[in-house]
Amino acid sequence: MDVNKVVAEIVKKNGGELSGIYFVACGGSLVDMYVADYFMKAEVLKAGTGLYTANEFVQVVPKRLDEHSVVILCSHGGNTPESVAAGEVAQKRGAITIGLTHNKHAELLKVSDYSFLYEWGDGAKVLNNPMAIILDLTVSLVNATEGYSSYDKFREGMTIIDTVVDNAKKQVQDRIKVFADKYQEETMYYILGSGPSYGHAYGFSICSLMEMQWLDSTSVHSGEFFHGPFEVTDKDTMFILLMSQGRTRPLDERAKVFLDKYAEKVEVVDAKELGLDLIPDEVSEFFNPILFYSVLSEYRSALANNRNHDLDVRRYMGKVEY
Amino acid sequence: MDVNKVVAEIVKKNGGELSGIYFVACGGSLVDMYVADYFMKAEVLKAGTGLYTANEFVQVVPKRLDEHSVVILCSHGGNTPESVAAGEVAQKRGAITIGLTHNKHAELLKVSDYSFLYEWGDGAKVLNNPMAIILDLTVSLVNATEGYSSYDKFREGMTIIDTVVDNAKKQVQDRIKVFADKYQEETMYYILGSGPSYGHAYGFSICSLMEMQWLDSTSVHSGEFFHGPFEVTDKDTMFILLMSQGRTRPLDERAKVFLDKYAEKVEVVDAKELGLDLIPDEVSEFFNPILFYSVLSEYRSALANNRNHDLDVRRYMGKVEY
Repeated sequence: MDVNKVVAEIVKKNGGELSGIYFVACGGSLVDMYVADYFMKAEVLKAGTGLYTANEFVQVVPKRLDEHSVVILCSHGGNTPESVAAGEVAQKRGAITIGLTHNKHAELLKVSDYSFLYEWGDGAKVLNNPMAIILDLTVSLVNATEGYSSYDKFREGMTIIDTVVDNAKKQVQDRIKVFADKYQEETMYYILGSGPSYGHAYGFSICSLMEMQWLDSTSVHSGEFFHGPFEVTDKDTMFILLMSQGRTRPLDERAKVFLDKYAEKVEVVDAKELGLDLIPDEVSEFFNPILFYSVLSEYRSALANNRNHDLDVRRYMGKVEY
Repeated sequence: MDVNKVVAEIVKKNGGELSGIYFVACGGSLVDMYVADYFMKAEVLKAGTGLYTANEFVQVVPKRLDEHSVVILCSHGGNTPESVAAGEVAQKRGAITIGLTHNKHAELLKVSDYSFLYEWGDGAKVLNNPMAIILDLTVSLVNATEGYSSYDKFREGMTIIDTVVDNAKKQVQDRIKVFADKYQEETMYYILGSGPSYGHAYGFSICSLMEMQWLDSTSVHSGEFFHGPFEVTDKDTMFILLMSQGRTRPLDERAKVFLDKYAEKVEVVDAKELGLDLIPDEVSEFFNPILFYSVLSEYRSALANNRNHDLDVRRYMGKVEY
């Protein structure tokens, strides 16, 4: 499907009324929705929102979910039982469901009023990945119902982001090797990030490190770091700091000043230095996680390579019942 | 101040209109707000909500924040600069601020339209701790504006929770010693929880373990566990599983079945077994974190004692500039 067409149909069906947009998925797919929820929390005047791991949405359906609500669902394989159940629950309430998947035979499609079969893999443009599609759907729905003053800038950003990402991936090729050589023996990683990027601090922790490398890890919000977590800091604690472009950058900068002083194992991944400032200031923050996902994937490949631990190896998922 | 009085005054001032309740704090104080935000997301028909680490709220003020919004702030010491700044920002927008602190000379009081000097320490009833006050304010504000069908049951729960907590603390005295003896050498803890209790899985991780014990840790939502994190599981991985009473219990039960099979170091803290089912079913879930905080404080004391690492020792907070 096409984002513009879906938005136009929903607006027509709902008479321009939008009571909320809800983001429901699991694991990596949920991570990809974080920035859209952040956009809603920051920029919306009327509509409700919420980010839900699918089974929690199924058990605790938001009371305000109604026929003027949109529920966006995503499942890469398309058959995650909790996500399919969430689509059923949403449709029973009369909400409009939009499902995203990489599997054209997905069960998710059966509970999706609108659906997107997205591109994936090395050749795919980030514009056609689920994160960008979900963000675009969200921003466009808000613009079409309440209005969003930076919508033109957002559209401009969407045309630039693939170039930014391609350049950034090239830019980090040397440093990812240095990173992997230096830190391949580490067993615990603290991933710091803020605002639109916190979702990908969490995502790198649970997907790239825990799931794909069986490594201990945690994500810490840069703003929360100084209220508990920073007491773990010493010269042996390993940190990856995601420095966002945009309004929450001061939070990341504060963390950097502290880490520069008290930590020795720190990898800084800076969206600004990686070219995100090419995108208009009014909207660049919303593109941070798209950049971070692609760049961090380079880091994890280098790490997996050095550690001789293939990114696709699982011991439970797809192997045992749970 | 008194919750009923504050709610009555706000309702009068706002003509019964409530555009949202926002929860803004840092670290342990933010943890105490999690369940109130969960209540809002689940039970509210109109009002907006959001849970914010204070500096993110300051940098990215929600566009919908207005004079019909209530912003609840909390700072134990009362002078957390980000939280005080958040109060200023909220008041500038015309929102009503409610500040909670344990310090009668707090800067926070200067930016609070209403304030609560709460009780703290071993002798204090949980009813008079910030978590219960914030929850009560939230539920009562919603009831007074939109109505909440289980409000009478909630009030009943508030009269029972101190007894439940007192009994549970006695109930765990033997097992916390066994726990501390068994796990005192562990260096990485996975804390699992769901729904209203996820905030305290996070809180135990960042405050009790990282801050007070300088131990590595992470919190994982029980529903997310199967979508990445569970790949770290083996017989040497240490888990603390918070099993909630209420709607999200099936998520915790699923995690338990898996851990019983594939992990060996697992401590289950079960709200139901600890007596939370004394509270009416309609509302018992909202009391999970109040019980968990008190019970987990017993666990951390036993651990600190065995590890000979005093809970009050800091190396950065209050020691260096940051």
